[in-house]
Amino acid sequence: MPIQFDVDPTVAQLAASTADFVREVVIPAERECGGSVHDAPEALRETLQKAAREAGVFAPHVPTRWGGHGLDLRGQAAVFEAAGYSLLGPLALNCAAPDEGNMHLLEKVATGEQQQRYLRPLAAGESRSCFAMTEPAPGAGADPRSLRTTATRVPGGWRIDGRKWFITGAQGADFAIVMARTSGGPGDPGGATMFLVDAETPGMHLVRTIDTLDESLFAGHSEIVFEECVVGEEQVLGAVDRGFEGAQVRLGPARMTHCMRWLGAARRAQDVALERAGSRMAFGSALGDLGMVQQMLADSEIDIEASRALILRTAWELDAASSAASQLTSVSKTFVAEAVNRVVDRAVQICGALGVSAEDAPLARLFREVRPFRIYDGPSETHRFAIARRALRPYRQPSPEWPRRRRAGWR
Amino acid sequence: MPIQFDVDPTVAQLAASTADFVREVVIPAERECGGSVHDAPEALRETLQKAAREAGVFAPHVPTRWGGHGLDLRGQAAVFEAAGYSLLGPLALNCAAPDEGNMHLLEKVATGEQQQRYLRPLAAGESRSCFAMTEPAPGAGADPRSLRTTATRVPGGWRIDGRKWFITGAQGADFAIVMARTSGGPGDPGGATMFLVDAETPGMHLVRTIDTLDESLFAGHSEIVFEECVVGEEQVLGAVDRGFEGAQVRLGPARMTHCMRWLGAARRAQDVALERAGSRMAFGSALGDLGMVQQMLADSEIDIEASRALILRTAWELDAASSAASQLTSVSKTFVAEAVNRVVDRAVQICGALGVSAEDAPLARLFREVRPFRIYDGPSETHRFAIARRALRPYRQPSPEWPRRRRAGWR
Amino acid sequence: MPIQFDVDPTVAQLAASTADFVREVVIPAERECGGSVHDAPEALRETLQKAAREAGVFAPHVPTRWGGHGLDLRGQAAVFEAAGYSLLGPLALNCAAPDEGNMHLLEKVATGEQQQRYLRPLAAGESRSCFAMTEPAPGAGADPRSLRTTATRVPGGWRIDGRKWFITGAQGADFAIVMARTSGGPGDPGGATMFLVDAETPGMHLVRTIDTLDESLFAGHSEIVFEECVVGEEQVLGAVDRGFEGAQVRLGPARMTHCMRWLGAARRAQDVALERAGSRMAFGSALGDLGMVQQMLADSEIDIEASRALILRTAWELDAASSAASQLTSVSKTFVAEAVNRVVDRAVQICGALGVSAEDAPLARLFREVRPFRIYDGPSETHRFAIARRALRPYRQPSPEWPRRRRAGWR
Amino acid sequence: MPIQFDVDPTVAQLAASTADFVREVVIPAERECGGSVHDAPEALRETLQKAAREAGVFAPHVPTRWGGHGLDLRGQAAVFEAAGYSLLGPLALNCAAPDEGNMHLLEKVATGEQQQRYLRPLAAGESRSCFAMTEPAPGAGADPRSLRTTATRVPGGWRIDGRKWFITGAQGADFAIVMARTSGGPGDPGGATMFLVDAETPGMHLVRTIDTLDESLFAGHSEIVFEECVVGEEQVLGAVDRGFEGAQVRLGPARMTHCMRWLGAARRAQDVALERAGSRMAFGSALGDLGMVQQMLADSEIDIEASRALILRTAWELDAASSAASQLTSVSKTFVAEAVNRVVDRAVQICGALGVSAEDAPLARLFREVRPFRIYDGPSETHRFAIARRALRPYRQPSPEWPRRRRAGWR
Repeated sequence: MPIQFDVDPTVAQLAASTADFVREVVIPAERECGGSVHDAPEALRETLQKAAREAGVFAPHVPTRWGGHGLDLRGQAAVFEAAGYSLLGPLALNCAAPDEGNMHLLEKVATGEQQQRYLRPLAAGESRSCFAMTEPAPGAGADPRSLRTTATRVPGGWRIDGRKWFITGAQGADFAIVMARTSGGPGDPGGATMFLVDAETPGMHLVRTIDTLDESLFAGHSEIVFEECVVGEEQVLGAVDRGFEGAQVRLGPARMTHCMRWLGAARRAQDVALERAGSRMAFGSALGDLGMVQQMLADSEIDIEASRALILRTAWELDAASSAASQLTSVSKTFVAEAVNRVVDRAVQICGALGVSAEDAPLARLFREVRPFRIYDGPSETHRFAIARRALRPYRQPSPEWPRRRRAGWR
Repeated sequence: MPIQFDVDPTVAQLAASTADFVREVVIPAERECGGSVHDAPEALRETLQKAAREAGVFAPHVPTRWGGHGLDLRGQAAVFEAAGYSLLGPLALNCAAPDEGNMHLLEKVATGEQQQRYLRPLAAGESRSCFAMTEPAPGAGADPRSLRTTATRVPGGWRIDGRKWFITGAQGADFAIVMARTSGGPGDPGGATMFLVDAETPGMHLVRTIDTLDESLFAGHSEIVFEECVVGEEQVLGAVDRGFEGAQVRLGPARMTHCMRWLGAARRAQDVALERAGSRMAFGSALGDLGMVQQMLADSEIDIEASRALILRTAWELDAASSAASQLTSVSKTFVAEAVNRVVDRAVQICGALGVSAEDAPLARLFREVRPFRIYDGPSETHRFAIARRALRPYRQPSPEWPRRRRAGWR
Repeated sequence: MPIQFDVDPTVAQLAASTADFVREVVIPAERECGGSVHDAPEALRETLQKAAREAGVFAPHVPTRWGGHGLDLRGQAAVFEAAGYSLLGPLALNCAAPDEGNMHLLEKVATGEQQQRYLRPLAAGESRSCFAMTEPAPGAGADPRSLRTTATRVPGGWRIDGRKWFITGAQGADFAIVMARTSGGPGDPGGATMFLVDAETPGMHLVRTIDTLDESLFAGHSEIVFEECVVGEEQVLGAVDRGFEGAQVRLGPARMTHCMRWLGAARRAQDVALERAGSRMAFGSALGDLGMVQQMLADSEIDIEASRALILRTAWELDAASSAASQLTSVSKTFVAEAVNRVVDRAVQICGALGVSAEDAPLARLFREVRPFRIYDGPSETHRFAIARRALRPYRQPSPEWPRRRRAGWR
Repeated sequence: MPIQFDVDPTVAQLAASTADFVREVVIPAERECGGSVHDAPEALRETLQKAAREAGVFAPHVPTRWGGHGLDLRGQAAVFEAAGYSLLGPLALNCAAPDEGNMHLLEKVATGEQQQRYLRPLAAGESRSCFAMTEPAPGAGADPRSLRTTATRVPGGWRIDGRKWFITGAQGADFAIVMARTSGGPGDPGGATMFLVDAETPGMHLVRTIDTLDESLFAGHSEIVFEECVVGEEQVLGAVDRGFEGAQVRLGPARMTHCMRWLGAARRAQDVALERAGSRMAFGSALGDLGMVQQMLADSEIDIEASRALILRTAWELDAASSAASQLTSVSKTFVAEAVNRVVDRAVQICGALGVSAEDAPLARLFREVRPFRIYDGPSETHRFAIARRALRPYRQPSPEWPRRRRAGWR
């Protein structure tokens, strides 16, 4: 069975249906929230998800036993890109961050009882969730080991204390998955545990919703305080003190699904730029006949194709649970995040005044959306550090067998 | 059958054997030609090719009926990268430019008789060839339509007149494939014909071998003059006036095999840099512990992985003869040529003085080699022009059905 | 008198006072408009300008006979950078776009009577103005020759008809300087005339204020429609049919003052990043001890110094009315606009979550502000076209005396 | 006295004469050494220097009391750029590395007797010198503190032992200035001393001349071994154990004069590209009418102007011995080295095949020459590290007075 890139006919059909659905239903709905998903009303979410169910494109990534299409990551690559063509698309298909990643995490790590209580309604779009990990300085940011939120044992359970911020979707979420330190102190590489915390639990307070550059994630990013927030023993998700490992289960695929969705956004920006370049006249010819515009358009096509090829390769490694998956996830996340920013930036430039107006074209909004993607889910610098460290491993001294270790790098 | 990246076991085995052969036989032989393949003696070529035959890695791309391994382009991707790890590797395997591309062209376009006479010995390493297309200004360069060499009918054949330069491998070649204008004039898009011209044909003169930045192609690049060079009718390769179409048969795959070989060279440079970064101490730590060095190493890993993913995707499209193949070939050639340059440039920087010494490490030589790759086989600008033009096609006015034409871009 | 970079003591004093004023008065006022100057209340403008007058830093660029400090462009370089350190700074000093450029234009082109009526109150901060040139597609954008707004002679004056957009400061402005075509048609290089149009003139309608990516220019950018808008003969600014030349008087210096102000904004972003890098701990050390962060900080210092050096050089050429001024203005505008974007982008990256929060640091806002600067006042591509064309002029064929024409390029 | 950029008439005259001299005398002589200065015969040096003396352009930087024009660094900026227009120009004017920097060092640090013996003939072009600092790994490279060559006291003087490489101009030099450790050990920040070592001194052996990427420095780069090389006490240059401070005296200005000369080389490359773009036809128009070519040409003009502005600013700071000089020297060296590389790379691309031929245009040679400039005299990474560290200094914790420390950065 040689290398091949044809997607399964079922997947191809779902991707095509998704593209139709986004064009016919989702894009027209963008105006209803002024393009900003942060402040979109709950009713819009419900309307769109209902329409997605009717169109047969709901929950592409959810295992069939929970009512979804059960796509693997390679299949998701095709469908999520189509969904991401509108910033509202992933919400409509119930495959937006952070719920999509949380579903994956619950599928892999939760007990059967936890899955019934939390995963089932989440997969069905009947509830929403958040993942509470990031903390303001000097807490856990790019370096998760700085974790300062604590969970201490109390009779029958745990008491959580600490502060989180940039918690996507927290406002109105039905439950939070909270990372807290159960042993060790800030700087220690382990000792974290994940907890399932229901929205009504006393001691969990939403302090504010942050006014951020990006606006496309439903309910925005919030700051949450935990003060003597007590949860029962059954709310531990995964093993005590093994929370970082659990987060990794979530983060690898979650980084790739981010890439897939954002690639759709980049494709949207490029299509707007192409349309403009094909029709706007300047200096006696169409914009698209000017060499500098052609260069920008070509560079964006290159960025999009390279992103797609990397996403597919990485999805395959993750589906195969190969040992190369971690490195390729870092490589792809870094490349795609930067490529997507370049594509949108070029589209803004090609469209000129139209590119900076938030009313007349989607570009100004897309420009704001994609910038934080180079920071969220690990800043590019953190990934580059990890990539270099892994690449250097066989060359560290002393390494008697060095010359034989490295090969031409082909798998 | 879903998307997958596993190479066939036979191919994987051949790639591994090639990597071993390059490391054990070819790299040690580099010193014999001072690293410069341009001036390598014919005896070196023969010795290396003999060793490759014995190692069972000779002619990976040649159809089995001509004695090769018969790999498709996806298979070649793995093996050619391994071969390219040394600048002498492709020569050893008889898969270097321009012979490799000429074999492909002859396989596709030549008559049975022409194949027996020209392809059989070429595939076996018993002869060498060149492809004479490029002309000095104002002739055919990036724009082939500027072709000025003419072939005019004479009794029993054709008379060729004109000047070619940068003809790789011409010195000592047994025959040349010559592109000449048989109708129309400079600037016309068609009217070219390919001719097979034997080395001893009167009227074909090698004027000089050019001192170029790169030095890794056997016999270098030469300037050739055709003065009343008469060939018989049976020397026409393909159809009269359809030479440009014939060249396309050659150029698409030839661009990708270039990419594959150069990716191996980039991997070599990166491995040298990694070895240096893992062992050289500066400012109190290993070079590889310094963030700026890590950034360079990580960027090179990213460039290499993105190049490889694009090459595979494009090889698959070419193997499938898909309509997307032309666009992806342009995308890949442009990206890989520039990525390979970046990788080698970073390796030079990481290695410092060692990086600019042609004696103490292979980097100074690799640095010279890869630069022209952004010009040869179509400068990046020509490819970008073609990429933009193809991307713009559905958006050109008037285009009544425009809004439906474009989709999320998923194949 | 050799080359020297010391600023005049008077200028140095004014720059220092401005820096103090911005830090002590303007930055604390930023919160009052949520950082967005677009929607800032008129009262804030008045309060800040009053404070600037009291601090002796008001109107640095205005000729002394109109009550300002009378700085030349080299002097403005120092003071405007200090003012631009806050997005509100230029407004406070009455040196923000578009009023600042309009003052310069009126000073150079207006009649004495027009100066009394329009320039005097504008220089004093008692009125506001706008410059109505840009039109929506297919009108005048990057290519001014596409101008479609017309002014046709009527008894006693002119009737203006057309549509303008991205007219900065139009909302609430006391008058507009309007570019309209008085001869020829779209595509013709000349035939434009400037008109002074009072706010209350019938037929000039503000259609909407556009929701743009940037928000730092007082009163934002608006769309205006002219329908049978009649003005008297005395409202012609400069000569009939020579409007483009008049605009050039405004645009050269206006591009540089833009650069100066934005360089201050870049400095602000870099200072925020430096503060963060000096204090935030990650991976066991201060951010500023990590090589990749150092690289970003260093690249921003380089961008800032190169920008400043180019601004000074160009300001000197403009002050000297030298023939090199046009080329250097294009060079500087292009470089500085892109450098400022890079500096702010790096600061966002270094500050992570803080960098994308519009409440917790000024970076998210700065990031939005600087992007359009690569489009406004001529997109980078238009300037690059002009730069290349000027550079190529001596090499155009036929050019018998070519070899002597070019020198080492030293002035 | 406001900021101004006009060069002194005397300097302007010398710069113009130098440009004429280079065009009329030096460029025609390039063919005599095949363009490679490394292997140029001593006779060529003598001929060119004689011609320079006759043209009145010899030794622009040398103090008048030693027979030169006595230009300060600002003056040198104009003249050295004109000289650098040919790779042979600086040799002709006796202002090439390393002699030029050594003259400066001797002028500042040597005793009167040492000056008579070493500086006088060097300034007159009657002798040549080298500066022996860099060592192969694990010795002094980017990090000078790794210095391993030792000088130990012996009766009446010092015994030097160690190995140096990349010692420019060593072959045939009359004397070397050698950096050796007189106290402490590898890694210590001080403890180095400079020695004047005559060519014939026993124990100093030239091992080999390295085959490097660059070839434009007379006599190339050599590897030297010191074995029990004994020199007298009077051969100490400057103070014992203060050698690094002495090297700084040399390095700051030497980095800038490098920049000046290389800027001339970049200008040469750009002029070749402009000539080509103005005359070569492709795709139906002159190359220079194609947008992508215009973009490259414009970017190179921008790089050249920004480089020149930074050089002038830094030269002024150095002439004024200001405290900002170190930072600006690092900024300028980093920027100019990379800008010059970009300019030459673009020229190669624009010229296509011509750009990679070492015979048909100077670009292939220039391409090789400029690459090492990003490594020599401190790799870009080392300078970036220094730039960031200086910029961060006011922000390091604890820093009670922080908020007042930084200003808008205006001098």
